[in-house]
Amino acid sequence: MTPQPGSAGDVLTLISAGSATTRSDLARLTGLARSTISQRVDALIERGLVEETESGESTGGRPPRQLRLHTEDHAFAGVDLGATHCRVALMDISGNVLAECEDGLLIGEGPEQVLAHVSQRLDHLLDQVGRPRVALRAVGIGVPGPVEFATGRPNNPPIMPGWNDYPIPEYFGGGVEVLVDNDVNVMALGEHRNAFPGTSHLLFVKVGTGIGCGIMAEGKLHRGAQGSAGDIGHIRVSGHEDAGCRCGNSACLEAVAGGAAIARRLTELGLAAESGADVVALVQSGNTQALRLVREAGRLIGEVLASLVNFFNPEVIVIGGALSRVHEHLLAGIRETVYRRSLPLATHHLSITRSRTGINAAALGAGILAIEHYLSPDNINRIVNA
Amino acid sequence: MTPQPGSAGDVLTLISAGSATTRSDLARLTGLARSTISQRVDALIERGLVEETESGESTGGRPPRQLRLHTEDHAFAGVDLGATHCRVALMDISGNVLAECEDGLLIGEGPEQVLAHVSQRLDHLLDQVGRPRVALRAVGIGVPGPVEFATGRPNNPPIMPGWNDYPIPEYFGGGVEVLVDNDVNVMALGEHRNAFPGTSHLLFVKVGTGIGCGIMAEGKLHRGAQGSAGDIGHIRVSGHEDAGCRCGNSACLEAVAGGAAIARRLTELGLAAESGADVVALVQSGNTQALRLVREAGRLIGEVLASLVNFFNPEVIVIGGALSRVHEHLLAGIRETVYRRSLPLATHHLSITRSRTGINAAALGAGILAIEHYLSPDNINRIVNA
Repeated sequence: MTPQPGSAGDVLTLISAGSATTRSDLARLTGLARSTISQRVDALIERGLVEETESGESTGGRPPRQLRLHTEDHAFAGVDLGATHCRVALMDISGNVLAECEDGLLIGEGPEQVLAHVSQRLDHLLDQVGRPRVALRAVGIGVPGPVEFATGRPNNPPIMPGWNDYPIPEYFGGGVEVLVDNDVNVMALGEHRNAFPGTSHLLFVKVGTGIGCGIMAEGKLHRGAQGSAGDIGHIRVSGHEDAGCRCGNSACLEAVAGGAAIARRLTELGLAAESGADVVALVQSGNTQALRLVREAGRLIGEVLASLVNFFNPEVIVIGGALSRVHEHLLAGIRETVYRRSLPLATHHLSITRSRTGINAAALGAGILAIEHYLSPDNINRIVNA
Repeated sequence: MTPQPGSAGDVLTLISAGSATTRSDLARLTGLARSTISQRVDALIERGLVEETESGESTGGRPPRQLRLHTEDHAFAGVDLGATHCRVALMDISGNVLAECEDGLLIGEGPEQVLAHVSQRLDHLLDQVGRPRVALRAVGIGVPGPVEFATGRPNNPPIMPGWNDYPIPEYFGGGVEVLVDNDVNVMALGEHRNAFPGTSHLLFVKVGTGIGCGIMAEGKLHRGAQGSAGDIGHIRVSGHEDAGCRCGNSACLEAVAGGAAIARRLTELGLAAESGADVVALVQSGNTQALRLVREAGRLIGEVLASLVNFFNPEVIVIGGALSRVHEHLLAGIRETVYRRSLPLATHHLSITRSRTGINAAALGAGILAIEHYLSPDNINRIVNA
């Protein structure tokens, strides 16, 4: 908790935030000795993180040299692994997408095959933009299951056979930093940074086959003590004791309101539905039974969110995931319950909205996770002092 | 978000954390120029925040002068206002209690009368330890209702008639900083700093007449977007649709499991119980009906906490408030439900325990709120630059 002001990491943060564009700015903002500033800036230039150019506005005498992040030598990637897809976005150090790709890929094929595919796609995208593999500094990966964030190992992920405890970062060797997180966490981060950067407290609720939640508190991901925060799919909802859940309990939210659960109930009604996508197709075709079940699912999700609004008092709740594509019906059910059951003080300024980042939220968020980690003062200090 | 390293506030933080005890330490830790260090330290000494002494270990030559917080010139107070009591703790800048007092006081008498009482008690305690009123730098006050933290105004507090929107800090004039917060928030802060300083994520649940929760996330109070976070008393519990709540909804947690609700049910059973204290007395006298109702209340509280454990993934849940005095029965019910209904990953290292700070949690927490605010870099910079 003790600040260590004036490190190379702090200096880089001032440059990347645009607060300092010259050495004089840095001296004024930090109070550091000129010799210390020189030492920090030189180290950052030497590591290829910062560049100093002669261009700049003249203030009468010799124009001051301008400092900025060195964009060209670096690349970062965000990888979104779903049950049946893989999206990869290649980004520069400022978070701009340089190139991206998407294809079908079964996570159940296991870590070696899936990660070989990811690695190949990374090479391909780097080729496409003409950067060498060594330019790739950090990769963020979102996976559809719980992860021990510190080690990047999935923790008993139910729909990722063969991945339990697999050390994903080690697959990529030591040359690149790899951060692995739950897909809903990276979606929350991507949505926050892209669509709600000024919002302090945001919940991102993914309604797909299952149901999960990513939590932004004070603008940062809240992962909780064991990294399992946001696992709202197994919160109990009232009046559904007969609905058994794969977790062993009954009446879990996702066992009654997830895409798989709705598809199952539609099948019982004689309709052809195997997945959340089928549910969406039925709703979009105007099927009233599917519409009724989706709205009912919205009310049940709203019941759980009403509790969480009282507890957490977010400013924004974003609904994403496959089922949010029938957003008006799902959102109607959610809003109805939240505004009825939550306290007025907590709902007065609460906005419940559909994801704006859409299907790219996870890949973008994973890339942002990688960049923010790489640029964090601690990591920069580690690099500079290496 | 941009760091401004090397401010007087940062320098004070290094001194108060014990990381720096000399000017050389400060230069080494911050990289600041010697002249900047001198300027910062001199300003802190001039404002009476830091003192520099000749004593210290010799390293061969002249012994270096030692820097430390200047304790004697400052005093801080924590005030715990309950429905029927007032506790005041006078503290030094390091958080040591110098003197304290407690007496009966009805919050319903309204702000002028109650705050006049508080002010008189503060004078009395300052006299007792021989410090003048001007030594009092900041006061923290915990009140039994929702508060807009930024302005210190209660927001429609149900059991504080006459206090709605009353600007509490202004009562004390401009000479002293006054911070007002919900009682459960200051209890959470007091419990965290005193008993669980190393815990990142902690929930403090107060079970008294009503039920509320204070949230510590990353070691800081989480107040949420409107400051209403932790209001768990109005979360819906299943199977109690007939229980009306003063908020207008039904089946709210505190309408079925709060001290007032249990007392009401005992009265219906022909027992003399008007308050949570009466419930505690009945349990302690061995009354089996009271015991059954308390354990049942524990299960209902556990049902809500099970959801919050999945969502927030805390390391520690502390149960405080009047009803926790019959802790074994209440805790048994809570633990039973939480461990059955929450996910294994979230409960594996979860500890559910009784408050260790006890009845002093609110006054101590309010005092700590005041001291931490006063010593925050932003406030110190404001003082030094004034």
